[in-house]
Amino acid sequence: MHMQQHAIVIHTPGRGLTDLTSELTRLVTHSGYRIGLCHVFIRHTSASLLIQENADPSVQRDLERLFARLVPDGDPIFEHDMEGPDDMPAHVRSALTQSDLTIPLDDGRLHLGTWQGVYLWEHRHGPHRRELTVTLQGT
Amino acid sequence: MHMQQHAIVIHTPGRGLTDLTSELTRLVTHSGYRIGLCHVFIRHTSASLLIQENADPSVQRDLERLFARLVPDGDPIFEHDMEGPDDMPAHVRSALTQSDLTIPLDDGRLHLGTWQGVYLWEHRHGPHRRELTVTLQGT
Amino acid sequence: MHMQQHAIVIHTPGRGLTDLTSELTRLVTHSGYRIGLCHVFIRHTSASLLIQENADPSVQRDLERLFARLVPDGDPIFEHDMEGPDDMPAHVRSALTQSDLTIPLDDGRLHLGTWQGVYLWEHRHGPHRRELTVTLQGT
Repeated sequence: MHMQQHAIVIHTPGRGLTDLTSELTRLVTHSGYRIGLCHVFIRHTSASLLIQENADPSVQRDLERLFARLVPDGDPIFEHDMEGPDDMPAHVRSALTQSDLTIPLDDGRLHLGTWQGVYLWEHRHGPHRRELTVTLQGT
Repeated sequence: MHMQQHAIVIHTPGRGLTDLTSELTRLVTHSGYRIGLCHVFIRHTSASLLIQENADPSVQRDLERLFARLVPDGDPIFEHDMEGPDDMPAHVRSALTQSDLTIPLDDGRLHLGTWQGVYLWEHRHGPHRRELTVTLQGT
Repeated sequence: MHMQQHAIVIHTPGRGLTDLTSELTRLVTHSGYRIGLCHVFIRHTSASLLIQENADPSVQRDLERLFARLVPDGDPIFEHDMEGPDDMPAHVRSALTQSDLTIPLDDGRLHLGTWQGVYLWEHRHGPHRRELTVTLQGT
């Protein structure tokens, strides 16, 4: 079994989902691995990773609305607001989702379901530079 | 180190937990690996994976009730309801739990704690056919 | 590629975060792996794992307050309270966070972001003995 690691930088436009699927697909294809695992890690605590429905844009809007209700920006229970009303909510949203994901490779591809995409979820309102580490294992 | 991959299909009876522990145990035993990792991936965005208490059925009822309060079926904030009032809640429940899990193997077994079971959590009310990919690594 | 596994025991003082970063760093350094993955698994369903902001203590207090609102101790919707009002909330908090995490190794170190720490989140009010399994893979 072999392993390789890649650094990726994503510039997000602010709160919302950025699709990572095609970038990950490119790395997997380039590795030449037929069977294996693709591990993705985000090196931040105010953005996270998510596997979600990839077809209907209303899903992303609904996710945002639901999370905004669970963890409202500017909630008076938060002390930590040095970077603004979306600072602490970004940390809680990260805790409620994932900082790392692992996806199987089969037949040389990410073995996602038909309706699955891999997303970076930016939780801050402003644009950010986000660093990811992708580790591929396989044969 | 070796790797092997298996496809599993689970037919769920509708919303609720299906215990995967014995099926995973069977694959681990069959692999012959003594030390390693068992990765489980669900190829859907309206069902997810969960490690939970395996002894008292009231835990599962309580989990359902709490998640139903956090993410109510038919919530008017949801636009995406093409497949019914449990459509978007299923995606949010998936986001709040896991699409993949990794469990260590030790001494040829899943190294779960005494009270841990591995579950598929079906979030839709109707029965569904769910595909999982299990990747075992070990020696 | 090589693999090694370690058992860790953490004695928690009760609800709150215990930083695992230096203990994991010690294991990674000792392994001598330059590139790889560090998998951490908690063998319990009333404590969980979390990657969070490591600098400002108010983040941890805010996390506690928000989770206490989402999943209140002694909530009347819970049947399962054999071990007290924090019994079922501990299981739900575990479901909402992680039982396992994987962190990349790069240049012989945990490749965490500047502001990331790895934490055990004890969800019970009393002190507990918690068992973790750490699996390192790398070269």
